[in-house]
Amino acid sequence: MDAASAAVAPKKPASIEGLLELARPDMAKVDALIRERMQSPVSVIPALAEHLVGGSAKRLRPLLTIAAARVAGAQDDACLKLAAAVEFIHTATLLHDDVVDSSQLRRGKVAAHLIWGAPASVLVGDFLFARAFELMVEAGSMAALEILARASRVIAEGEVLQLTRAHDLNLSQELYLEIIRAKTAELFAAAAEAGAVSAGASPAHCKALRKFGQDLGLAFQLVDDALDYSGESQELGKNPGDDFREGKATLPLLLAISRTGAAEKAFWDRVVGRREQADGDFERARELIRMSGADAATLDLAAEYAIRAKAQLADFAASNSWRPALEDLADFAVSRRM
Amino acid sequence: MDAASAAVAPKKPASIEGLLELARPDMAKVDALIRERMQSPVSVIPALAEHLVGGSAKRLRPLLTIAAARVAGAQDDACLKLAAAVEFIHTATLLHDDVVDSSQLRRGKVAAHLIWGAPASVLVGDFLFARAFELMVEAGSMAALEILARASRVIAEGEVLQLTRAHDLNLSQELYLEIIRAKTAELFAAAAEAGAVSAGASPAHCKALRKFGQDLGLAFQLVDDALDYSGESQELGKNPGDDFREGKATLPLLLAISRTGAAEKAFWDRVVGRREQADGDFERARELIRMSGADAATLDLAAEYAIRAKAQLADFAASNSWRPALEDLADFAVSRRM
Repeated sequence: MDAASAAVAPKKPASIEGLLELARPDMAKVDALIRERMQSPVSVIPALAEHLVGGSAKRLRPLLTIAAARVAGAQDDACLKLAAAVEFIHTATLLHDDVVDSSQLRRGKVAAHLIWGAPASVLVGDFLFARAFELMVEAGSMAALEILARASRVIAEGEVLQLTRAHDLNLSQELYLEIIRAKTAELFAAAAEAGAVSAGASPAHCKALRKFGQDLGLAFQLVDDALDYSGESQELGKNPGDDFREGKATLPLLLAISRTGAAEKAFWDRVVGRREQADGDFERARELIRMSGADAATLDLAAEYAIRAKAQLADFAASNSWRPALEDLADFAVSRRM
Repeated sequence: MDAASAAVAPKKPASIEGLLELARPDMAKVDALIRERMQSPVSVIPALAEHLVGGSAKRLRPLLTIAAARVAGAQDDACLKLAAAVEFIHTATLLHDDVVDSSQLRRGKVAAHLIWGAPASVLVGDFLFARAFELMVEAGSMAALEILARASRVIAEGEVLQLTRAHDLNLSQELYLEIIRAKTAELFAAAAEAGAVSAGASPAHCKALRKFGQDLGLAFQLVDDALDYSGESQELGKNPGDDFREGKATLPLLLAISRTGAAEKAFWDRVVGRREQADGDFERARELIRMSGADAATLDLAAEYAIRAKAQLADFAASNSWRPALEDLADFAVSRRM
């Protein structure tokens, strides 16, 4: 970790072992639900779904649904089906994203569309999306359905917005944040809010947990975008440089472009604007991002969002062991290397 | 119309003018809802959606939701949001299908993915699908949500099944019917059932209207598959021969293959099995389908399903003017030329 972000980030790499331990019984049930509901008599569907689900899925989003429900006092298992639904929505968007971005690697495996073809990935994504809504109907909460239907729509809007502005070197930091708020943070926000709602939490608690999820999601995506320039594929489970090769205008890139100025303008125009890339270009971009402090600034912003997320938990009893576990999750989002 | 199908089909081409007239006030509201809810601050979304919605959309599925609700006695407008949701689900599947099939023409216009690209078509499909669920949540019926979530999943299963069995010359008629029951008839069935449920119809009436929709959908798809070999692109709004070029094993083709036997086996193996097609192959297939009576047999089966559909309406009062209008719809599904 660089000096700048070490100032606000926790001293030692945060761990979510405590959260995982607390959530283990719930997550075992969620995992069983996921495996049960990805089944279909059409054999390609479970095969393709298993490829993703069986990978190194972190299951952060369903974990968030569970933790939000439990910290809000949920005693029953109403949150489990919603948690599985959240993971299905996420998996569906991954399948479609990988087709849209022509990604090669996902969760440490060859991307599904390269094995089964883009058509199967699109359609199995649709299957998982529909399954998510079937699970939500079973969960029986119209309020949770509203939250997750809206989130699904906002995610699609964010993805389209990113698609149309992908190669824009002049993208403002504001619009970049709007894109990641929609395409990533909205599902984190909805995952937490749906958990809270299913627990019968007060409107104030539902709002606080939604905001926790949103800020956590922003921190998570900012780190993701930084890792695309500094991570190793073995740890990431996907190739670093994917964003660069797609000419995706993420914050590390946008900051480096503004900081390196006229001297490197021709380079950025060529590799991002026109996506004419040659061997060594990624390494050069990586170096410019490191030298200009663009990666450190991105991680600093992530750390700020993690602090804001934790502040949302102030109104929950410190004696509820899910509260420190959620605080650890916010720290983990920033200090993670994968 | 050929002699064989004329025996069971209505004497003169059926018209749905009466149904359209009855449904005009409702459909105007549904249309306004559709246009309102396809809006988004992300401008590509309404532009792409308008391209499809502004085309020669027949709006048969939302029409079915309205008619089912009204024939079941609905006095309020609870069915309108469900009808718009049904059209959004349908439009989303069209967008994804055209990407999957690489279709060139849709609703009389160049397919959206050829203008905006496959990524935008996939993501705008996701947007419309999510919007459909937002509308269903607003409609407030958990029963209707269950019906349409299930239908969305069954449609995806049908599409994947078709994808994996597309070039199978030995596809049984049974499996072909299973595919079209899932990919097409299920949405017709769900559209009608959701309308009936929203009207508070009895379980028997809901079941009858669901079955009406299913049989109507089967008739509709059988005619669609026949028209792909006998229609004209100007009338169809899509290119005839699309199924043939994709090597899609539809009933006219499967019947022709079984009826033309050994003499033509090499031809079918080449053009469908291996999809090695040259100029004149489509015309030859068309001729073999006509000569073997495969198209007439397909239309006969469609006419049988239309008769079954109409039989489902027996328990509804003949004095309710929506009943004959629905009967006309079943006849229209068979006699239509577009």
